[in-house]
Amino acid sequence: MTRSPLAPAAFPALPDLPGVTLRVARARYKAWDRCDLTYVELAPGTSVAGVLTRSKCPSPEVEWCRKALVLGEARALVVNAGNSNAFTGNRGREAVEAIAARVAGHLGCAPSDVFIASTGVIGVPLPVDKAEAGLDAAFAAEVCGWEDAAATIMTTDTFAKAAVTEAVVGGKTVRLVGIIKGSGMIAPDMATMLGFIFTDAAVRPEFLEAALRTANATSFSCITVDGDTSTSDTVLAFATGGAGNSPIGDEDDEGADAFIAALHDLCRQLAHLVVRDGEGASKFITIDVDGAESDRSAHRIAMSIANSPLVKTAIAGEDANWGRVVMAVGKAGEPAERDRLAIRFGTTEVAKDGLAVQGYDEAPVAEHLKGQEIEIGVDLGLGEGRATVWTCDLTHGYISINADYRS
Amino acid sequence: MTRSPLAPAAFPALPDLPGVTLRVARARYKAWDRCDLTYVELAPGTSVAGVLTRSKCPSPEVEWCRKALVLGEARALVVNAGNSNAFTGNRGREAVEAIAARVAGHLGCAPSDVFIASTGVIGVPLPVDKAEAGLDAAFAAEVCGWEDAAATIMTTDTFAKAAVTEAVVGGKTVRLVGIIKGSGMIAPDMATMLGFIFTDAAVRPEFLEAALRTANATSFSCITVDGDTSTSDTVLAFATGGAGNSPIGDEDDEGADAFIAALHDLCRQLAHLVVRDGEGASKFITIDVDGAESDRSAHRIAMSIANSPLVKTAIAGEDANWGRVVMAVGKAGEPAERDRLAIRFGTTEVAKDGLAVQGYDEAPVAEHLKGQEIEIGVDLGLGEGRATVWTCDLTHGYISINADYRS
Repeated sequence: MTRSPLAPAAFPALPDLPGVTLRVARARYKAWDRCDLTYVELAPGTSVAGVLTRSKCPSPEVEWCRKALVLGEARALVVNAGNSNAFTGNRGREAVEAIAARVAGHLGCAPSDVFIASTGVIGVPLPVDKAEAGLDAAFAAEVCGWEDAAATIMTTDTFAKAAVTEAVVGGKTVRLVGIIKGSGMIAPDMATMLGFIFTDAAVRPEFLEAALRTANATSFSCITVDGDTSTSDTVLAFATGGAGNSPIGDEDDEGADAFIAALHDLCRQLAHLVVRDGEGASKFITIDVDGAESDRSAHRIAMSIANSPLVKTAIAGEDANWGRVVMAVGKAGEPAERDRLAIRFGTTEVAKDGLAVQGYDEAPVAEHLKGQEIEIGVDLGLGEGRATVWTCDLTHGYISINADYRS
Repeated sequence: MTRSPLAPAAFPALPDLPGVTLRVARARYKAWDRCDLTYVELAPGTSVAGVLTRSKCPSPEVEWCRKALVLGEARALVVNAGNSNAFTGNRGREAVEAIAARVAGHLGCAPSDVFIASTGVIGVPLPVDKAEAGLDAAFAAEVCGWEDAAATIMTTDTFAKAAVTEAVVGGKTVRLVGIIKGSGMIAPDMATMLGFIFTDAAVRPEFLEAALRTANATSFSCITVDGDTSTSDTVLAFATGGAGNSPIGDEDDEGADAFIAALHDLCRQLAHLVVRDGEGASKFITIDVDGAESDRSAHRIAMSIANSPLVKTAIAGEDANWGRVVMAVGKAGEPAERDRLAIRFGTTEVAKDGLAVQGYDEAPVAEHLKGQEIEIGVDLGLGEGRATVWTCDLTHGYISINADYRS
C-alpha cells in the first residue's frame, strides 16, 4: 500500500515509559512474514480504563475487555493483527480465554488482568495454536520500541501511528504515549480502530475511566471515515504509576486538570492519525458546527455532513458544493432553520440566512479546496451548541480498496 | 450519460387517463436544448395527496405543496427540471408564487390548486422570467404522451421511468400511471426524487392520502442510493375520477382494497426504477430482514445494511463478504443478538448462530453475486418484525459522477 498522502513526515520520537515493556512476535495469523502479535507487559498496580464499540455484534475480545475493565487492573495487553476473531462463536471465545490463561500463567497474574484485542478478517476463529506459539515467541523476544509495536498492530494501515503528550502532576512530569491503528482495509478484512494509551502517571481506575470517556467524546467519537462501525473498536488506557506522582483519584486532586488535558490532546492526535490514513483519503476535513440547540445536536449534524457521500465526493472533486452541506444538515433530523443557516469553506462565508452570499469571492474558496486541510463551518443560528468532527474525502481509492479485491 | 445497465429494455406502454392532459415546453433553465418544463392539466374535481421530504431545509416548492395538500384538490402540476430552487430565500418563494399565479390565471382556478416541484442545482433562485415564458409555451403546446413527460422531468437520469397498474373498483377498471425521476446526478446538481402518480379512479383526498402514506412506507421509504436525503423529494398522487367509479372514501368501500394494492404495486415499481438508475449502479440489491423485534427495527437494520459503503462496495466487487453485513447489523443500534444471527446471499445460508456455516457451498453464492439482481437475507431470530429494502452497489461510477465534475 502506498503511504497515505496525509501521513505525517515521520514517526514521532517517543519516550520509554516506566512500567511498560513492549515485545512483538510472528504468530503468522495470515500468510505473511511480519510481526503480528504485540505483547505489552505492565507493572503490577497498573490501572486500566477503556471505551469499546457499541456494536450489537461485538467480538469476543470486546466482551472480554468489557468484563475485565470492571476490575480496573491490568498486567498485560495482547494485540493480534490479521484476524479479528469476530463472529466466531464458542471457538472465538475459547481462543480469547486461552490467550488470557497463557499470559496469566507466564506472569503469575489473574486472567482478568490480561487485555486482548484483535483486528482483521471477520468470521474465522483465531487459531489457538498460532496464538500460543506467538505468545511463547513474544515472551522470549527482546524488548522493542514503540515504532515496532505501532507497526505490529497494523493491518492495511499505510503508516504506523503514535503520539505523545505530557503533563505536570504534583510536581512530577508524567508522559502519555498512544499507538493506534485503523482505517486501512482490504476486502475481506474489516476496518477496526484499536487504540492503546500508556502513561507512567499514577491514576486510579475510576478516574482514568472518567477521563478517558470525556476525552473519547470529543476525539474518537468525532471521527468517521465511512460511517461503518466496527465489531471490534477498542481504546484502552493503562496507567503504570512509574512516574511516582501521588495517584490522581478525583478531579480536585493536584494535576488532575493537567492530566485530563494531556489525555484529551493525545486522544485527538491519535484520532486525527486514523482519519489521515482513511481509505483512499486525499483531504483531511474538519467540520465545525456552531449555533445548534445543544452540543449533542451539533454533533449529530456534524456527523451527518461528515458521513454524506455527496459532501465527501464534492470535497474530493475540490468543488465548493455547499448545496450538499445544506442537504446533509437538512437530513440530520435535528433542529435547524433553513433561513438562519450559514455555511463557510475555510474562512469564506458562502451561504447565509437561507441563501447564497451574493458575489462572494470564489478565489479563496477554490484555493482552500485545492489544499489537503479542508474546513467546513456551519452556523445554525439557533443556540449555543457546538461540535467539531473530522473526516476524509471519498475517492476512487476507497472503491478500489473495498470493491476491486475479492475474498 | 450511458443508459444504466439495470434499466428496463423499453419504456412501458401506458394508457391515456381521462382528466390528465400532458404538455411539455422549453423553459431553458439550463443551457440545454430540451424540454425542461412539464405542465399537467387535471380535470376539475381531481383529488390530490402527497408525501414530501422530511428535510429540515426543504425547497419552497415542498413548502408550497405541503400547504396546498391540506385542501386536497388539484387542477395542475408544474415540474421544473434543471434548478431545484432550494435554499434561495425570498426569491425562491416568489418564483413558486409566480408560477402558481400564472397557472391559476390560465385555468381560472385557485393558486392552491397548482402543485409545483423543481429539481436541479441548489442555491440558484428559479428565474421567474424563464418559468413564465416556459409556462406560456406549455399552455400553447400540443398535448404530449407519458414518455415525453417522463423524459422532461429528468435531470441526469439515464432513462425515462414510468409504470402502470390497474384495479377493479365497483365494477369499473381504474388505471394508475406513475412517472418518476431521481438518482442521476452531476455535481453541482442535487439528486431529487420526484414521483407523480395519476389515476382516473374517483378517490376522496383523505383516503388517497392514507393510501399513499401506506404505500410509501414500503416503497419509496425503503429505497436508498447513498443515504443522502434531498431537500426536494416529492411524491404526489392525483385522482381525476374520470373512470366513473363511485368515489372511494373509506377502506370498507367497494374496491378500496384493490385500489390500495394497485397503488402499492405502482409505488414499488417506481421506487425500483429509481434504484435501477442509481448513480454508478451495476447491481440491484434486495435486502430482506426477518426475525426483528418489530417491523420498524427490521427497517432500520435493513437500511443500515443498505447504506453501508462497505457492504455496497463488497457487492460491487462480487464478494460474499458477510462480515460486513454483520458489522452493519451491529451498528444499527437496534436489538440484535450476535449468536442468533443468520445471513444468506441468494438462497445460500452463509452464517448462522453467530458464526460461519461450516463448509457451505460457495459456488451458488459466487454465481449469485455475478448476476445483476442480488439478494441479502438476514434473520435476527428475535421476533416477528420484518422489512425489505432496495439499494444498488457503490462503484467507481458513483465517485466519477460526484467527484470528477466541478461546479
